[in-house]
Amino acid sequence: MFAEAEADPVLTKEAFKPLEAKLRVALLNAQYQRLQKAEKSLLVVVAGIDGAGKGATVNLLNEWMDPRHIKTLAYGPPEGEELERPPMWRYWKDLPPKGSTGIVFGSWYAPLIREASRKHPNQDSIEAQSVAIRRFEAMLAAEGTQIVKLWFHLSSDAQRARAKRLLASPETSWQVSPIDLKVHKKYDRIRNSGQVVINHTDSGHAPWVVIPSADENMRAARTAEAVLAAMRQQSVPRIPPTFVAHTGPARILDRLGQLDYDAKLDREDYESELGLLQGRLARAARSKKFQERSLVLVFEGQDAAGKGGAIRRITHALDARQYDITPVAAPNSYESSRPYLWRFWRHVPGRGRIAIFDRSWYGRVLVERVEKITPPSHWRRAYAEINDFEAQLAGSGALVLKFWLAITADVQLERFKDREKSPFKNFKITPDDWRNRDKWKEYAAATNEMLARTDVKHAPWHLISANDKRYARLQVLWHIVEALENQL
Amino acid sequence: MFAEAEADPVLTKEAFKPLEAKLRVALLNAQYQRLQKAEKSLLVVVAGIDGAGKGATVNLLNEWMDPRHIKTLAYGPPEGEELERPPMWRYWKDLPPKGSTGIVFGSWYAPLIREASRKHPNQDSIEAQSVAIRRFEAMLAAEGTQIVKLWFHLSSDAQRARAKRLLASPETSWQVSPIDLKVHKKYDRIRNSGQVVINHTDSGHAPWVVIPSADENMRAARTAEAVLAAMRQQSVPRIPPTFVAHTGPARILDRLGQLDYDAKLDREDYESELGLLQGRLARAARSKKFQERSLVLVFEGQDAAGKGGAIRRITHALDARQYDITPVAAPNSYESSRPYLWRFWRHVPGRGRIAIFDRSWYGRVLVERVEKITPPSHWRRAYAEINDFEAQLAGSGALVLKFWLAITADVQLERFKDREKSPFKNFKITPDDWRNRDKWKEYAAATNEMLARTDVKHAPWHLISANDKRYARLQVLWHIVEALENQL
Repeated sequence: MFAEAEADPVLTKEAFKPLEAKLRVALLNAQYQRLQKAEKSLLVVVAGIDGAGKGATVNLLNEWMDPRHIKTLAYGPPEGEELERPPMWRYWKDLPPKGSTGIVFGSWYAPLIREASRKHPNQDSIEAQSVAIRRFEAMLAAEGTQIVKLWFHLSSDAQRARAKRLLASPETSWQVSPIDLKVHKKYDRIRNSGQVVINHTDSGHAPWVVIPSADENMRAARTAEAVLAAMRQQSVPRIPPTFVAHTGPARILDRLGQLDYDAKLDREDYESELGLLQGRLARAARSKKFQERSLVLVFEGQDAAGKGGAIRRITHALDARQYDITPVAAPNSYESSRPYLWRFWRHVPGRGRIAIFDRSWYGRVLVERVEKITPPSHWRRAYAEINDFEAQLAGSGALVLKFWLAITADVQLERFKDREKSPFKNFKITPDDWRNRDKWKEYAAATNEMLARTDVKHAPWHLISANDKRYARLQVLWHIVEALENQL
Repeated sequence: MFAEAEADPVLTKEAFKPLEAKLRVALLNAQYQRLQKAEKSLLVVVAGIDGAGKGATVNLLNEWMDPRHIKTLAYGPPEGEELERPPMWRYWKDLPPKGSTGIVFGSWYAPLIREASRKHPNQDSIEAQSVAIRRFEAMLAAEGTQIVKLWFHLSSDAQRARAKRLLASPETSWQVSPIDLKVHKKYDRIRNSGQVVINHTDSGHAPWVVIPSADENMRAARTAEAVLAAMRQQSVPRIPPTFVAHTGPARILDRLGQLDYDAKLDREDYESELGLLQGRLARAARSKKFQERSLVLVFEGQDAAGKGGAIRRITHALDARQYDITPVAAPNSYESSRPYLWRFWRHVPGRGRIAIFDRSWYGRVLVERVEKITPPSHWRRAYAEINDFEAQLAGSGALVLKFWLAITADVQLERFKDREKSPFKNFKITPDDWRNRDKWKEYAAATNEMLARTDVKHAPWHLISANDKRYARLQVLWHIVEALENQL
């Protein structure tokens, strides 16, 4: 794997100059033709032996390509708001839009490389991290992000010689950090970790390329060639099944059909119970223990099922500084130029905070499926991607609760008519709402499949009978309060 | 000022019901007609006596208006990344886009109210804060943001009675926090602070409205009426001169014309000096003291003056995790739907970080002026707004350095021709660049005026002779290194 790179091959100036001119033209063309016209993005992941010129790569690509469409994404140890969220949050949030390139330092490989270069690496951790990375990259590839991963490599002798040469002059000695001097003692371990990482995560859609780095010209040429090859990749390659997250076969029940829609509550019981539940919610949300957790609430349901009213009964008990409501509609151009889940990752709450989604990422397997906005291959893999996303939320300490507010077709009709008649409610009803009614059965089927595939312990669905608004609101509040009180 | 509110007026249910229906329709219409069609945004600032129902206002407006276009912006004491930046950063970053409404809790008034309600308020601080707020709001108003500021008020007796009533039942007692109980002892002080704040910051373009809040119906109706009046405000009102930041008369010199364009450097001196300066920069940027500061670098200059090359000589000495390069072009729709400086505030660096702007906010008084993209009334006030912005950066510990790379028309022509000939440089030249050359004199005049009006001590301009690229690059590096070494 490293044999060629450790021979420290050299590219002479005479050979390099004509190659450089050709590569620069090709890179620019690929940037315009392959990325911008085809609406794809590119991630260049940078890793390898220290002192092999990873940093110089940024300058090279910025000089050789059009730098207006390149963003350097560099990460150190997680800190501040990063620590309050799943580890992948910081990478998600920075994903470049279509047409542009991200150069990633200290990527999602940093923890894996660290683990693999320990004296006694934990094999389970290596396996688990590799699986997570493979899923992440497969998802990116499927969403139109090209990935190429560069491992900068040179021989141990060349590494030592480079440090010596740079240290000899005050004009270059600053390029050698104390860390560089230390790590060359660990050469073998980092080399081994490279092998482990490449073996576990190399793939057709996100290949690792070893860059011989002892010679500057060779390094530049090979880097450019690897980036070029990635940009020229024709279409999304077939992603091997072992790289994709799966939801197993699920027994799809007609949960919507089997719900008891007659549940109701009279006004007096409601008012009193509402106050008590809101009191419990207020106390739980202000508790010390909640300051170490977070809460993610998802609201879905038929049009006019009462999502907005249920949400207001929750927020009434909360401090306005504590929550955010994200109403979800069709993505705007800013959002649709990134992988699907990006716009939701942006709203992942920090500690002590509550994120409320009025509609959500489930649009992928509901409206986008039924209205044929998204091809089946895309929404089918969404179940697993969503489960992955929510597992990461739960894993970082978030309580994830999902509510489906269910009404019957006749109640919806009544409410639609009411809305049309009321001068201050008719903004809530559009021709779309009427059209959706025609597809009631398709939506019900999509909902039942969604419930079957994504009702998981760490992020449960609560299917709420909502023909009676009072009953539904208290049910929602009760589930939230119970979950908070049990978990805190 | 508070006489009416302290009489605790009541609106009966009979009077409220028909009014409510009318107000809701009017609010919705105004939201669509006045905000969305006219491309304006609205900020509702919420303040007042504790326990007067500030929180209920969020629920009210979300229920009465279309909640998809309302965002609650609530702030507590500054924390985390907020502390590393100017105090106004968090408000800037959250400014709502055109067509939408922000409800602001814990706004820019919080520190002023706190100061004014102290036993012995510092009058200088009150004056200074008021001036800053007035400028901020005048700028927002001039950029198409309607502002209305609500002071929720009730009598001391009503405040006490409300707490008692709520505490009497477990269904409502949670609505009274221990803080509420404490603050009613401070009623007089908060009342006084309200008077001070309103006297200092009330204006036609950002009025304060006192909302009688003892009675829920009255509070709801008056809130709705105040918000409605703000949305209906026809156009940007005349902003009184005392509210606007001014740049005094400036003597505009022909600094561009007087520059020595013959300065140059031979290759050998350059290579050696470059390494030494980069070494000093690397050390300064990695120093402990810099971790408490930040650096903002602005690059402007004629097309082909060598901004990109100068920037790469800087970043070569830096850790990729430490800096961000923001290339500035015409704003996209996401950016242009907010006040002008918004997109730059987003990139204000945190501690220990370096923000590099390849072109900048000065586009307002350069390309936007010369190309008549922005009317004179707007770019004329930009000088003062920019000075304000940079003063805030410097005030929060940022070093702000601005570079104008200056070349002569003949050198530009040479470089343009070179670019056209080179297969990997011709992406850098567009018909726009040629067109700009025809307006060389207009650009020079705009540049000289900009230098005269915005070359300030806390954010100096360095006018760099750039006909010789090597000379220019070293000059830039030298100024940065000197500034860092002197200040750290």
